[in-house]
Amino acid sequence: MTTPGKVGLVGSGLVGKSWAMIFASVGYEVWMYDIKQEQLDKAVSDIGLEVEKFEKEGTLRGTLPAHQQKTLIHVTTDLKECITGAVYIQESVPEDLELKKKIWTEIDGLVDSAKMILASSTSCIVPSLISKDLRHREQFIVAHPVNPPYHAPMTELVPAPWTNEFTQTEARTLMTRVGQVPVSLSRELPGFVLNRMQYALLNECWRLLANKVVSVDDLDVVMRDGLGLRYAFMGPMETIHLNAPNGAAQYCQTYGNTIYKVSQDLGPVPEAWKMETDEHKKEVEEITKQLETLYPPKDLDERKLRRDTCLAALAKLKRGLPK
Amino acid sequence: MTTPGKVGLVGSGLVGKSWAMIFASVGYEVWMYDIKQEQLDKAVSDIGLEVEKFEKEGTLRGTLPAHQQKTLIHVTTDLKECITGAVYIQESVPEDLELKKKIWTEIDGLVDSAKMILASSTSCIVPSLISKDLRHREQFIVAHPVNPPYHAPMTELVPAPWTNEFTQTEARTLMTRVGQVPVSLSRELPGFVLNRMQYALLNECWRLLANKVVSVDDLDVVMRDGLGLRYAFMGPMETIHLNAPNGAAQYCQTYGNTIYKVSQDLGPVPEAWKMETDEHKKEVEEITKQLETLYPPKDLDERKLRRDTCLAALAKLKRGLPK
Repeated sequence: MTTPGKVGLVGSGLVGKSWAMIFASVGYEVWMYDIKQEQLDKAVSDIGLEVEKFEKEGTLRGTLPAHQQKTLIHVTTDLKECITGAVYIQESVPEDLELKKKIWTEIDGLVDSAKMILASSTSCIVPSLISKDLRHREQFIVAHPVNPPYHAPMTELVPAPWTNEFTQTEARTLMTRVGQVPVSLSRELPGFVLNRMQYALLNECWRLLANKVVSVDDLDVVMRDGLGLRYAFMGPMETIHLNAPNGAAQYCQTYGNTIYKVSQDLGPVPEAWKMETDEHKKEVEEITKQLETLYPPKDLDERKLRRDTCLAALAKLKRGLPK
Repeated sequence: MTTPGKVGLVGSGLVGKSWAMIFASVGYEVWMYDIKQEQLDKAVSDIGLEVEKFEKEGTLRGTLPAHQQKTLIHVTTDLKECITGAVYIQESVPEDLELKKKIWTEIDGLVDSAKMILASSTSCIVPSLISKDLRHREQFIVAHPVNPPYHAPMTELVPAPWTNEFTQTEARTLMTRVGQVPVSLSRELPGFVLNRMQYALLNECWRLLANKVVSVDDLDVVMRDGLGLRYAFMGPMETIHLNAPNGAAQYCQTYGNTIYKVSQDLGPVPEAWKMETDEHKKEVEEITKQLETLYPPKDLDERKLRRDTCLAALAKLKRGLPK
């Protein structure tokens, strides 16, 4: 078996493990680094169980059988062994700027090629903050997956102002090669694209709930039995393109004024997110209590398992449907 | 076969036909009214083909075989025959306030029970505007489905200020009985819930596109290969509840400030929706051109067919997955 190259993964938590499985699924030789051997041993054992389960269920990704995918994943507590000779580095340590800067300074000293792509999984730190002092900062980019990455393949590629063209293009090519679906941002901005979209939506949800227009469960129904069914197969823009006989231009002509008028009524960003005052806290409590009644804390693990089961089944379904 | 009651449908377009199939699927005797007999004949023929296709594909709704469902659907050009003795009326004529008021005045004169529920499918006219002058306005409610209603079962129930409790409760019970998933609003407001959520999201999408942060296709990827996969199975509130180890309260504690800060950066409602100035029109053109390149006008019908195929397959998949 010839491998398309070596990939270095820094961090072996949930996201790190998913990356290991994704890269190994198409034959990359994966070296996963962490500080504790026990953590790495557990990661390898978790991955082994998962890929076998996915193979049995028909939801395994990639071109290789599970037993071959497993043999491609190596672990090390020696950062140099992880980085040396890799074509691509993916860092997935906890979301803490100082921690990220520390580990990236170490990685920076080990980079042995101007073509090595240096990527971070961060969901909320802009790439310039992590990379500004790195020697190889032109090779740095954010590659932000969605949770759980294995069954939701979108990855946001966010360049810092100094990220070079090669890194942006090559990261996109490589993501496509491993079965991820890349989204290229032209520049960094707070929340990237996914979380900006999610927060815009959450703000309106929050206002509707705080104003007692609708219950939490009914609000979620609007998505899971209405709007969200389409979103599993097409984005908001194709959705409007198909919602007028002659496409999006006609849609804007017909509904633009309504959208503008209704949007004027949406209201400001909910202050409660800040949780500064007692009033904020009370508002958060009233809404989260409804969620805890619907899905009690003791059932959360089961609900997460249900989510991942549904996402795996959807990924399998989509493979058999027209693109 | 005993029927649970008679339902009167006013209007036989796409939405009217879907309602006919939904009510007939669990045994209701359906009377569909329209002004032209040819339109009704075509509707009956369309419905016949659809239910047979759905039965073959395993996506037929309800408890009865397709041939029995068909025999439950009657048509008439006599409004009185449609209304008399019905437990429930669903109006689905075009979105034109004057047209709606005219047909509802006629229906109003034919109502023969204080328990008859009078529902409109309108997506953008608040119920008070349609019903304020009706004798039976206490029995009036909006029951807004999503397109296509047959495979996306959410229905928003929007009361006018004078809608009585019985109508609100009974409409909810009846929707559940026919396999729809009801969403009860406590009061009317512009855009109801679904379109407010959709517009909040669309506004941010539009800003990201107008500012050239991302291409139209990549933006849609964020939804269809990322955020939107979960939304097929859970709403935005359950999503955040599952995104922190101890649920939504912890999520707000951890991410609330980030959400607030990022949201400050989202910006105002795009003026381009109004399409008043040349600048607005140019902005709309730049974005819709990308959509027309991705999905040319001549392929729109095929894309809509693909959408409905995907939604039918998803509906079938969801029936076999944990709720």
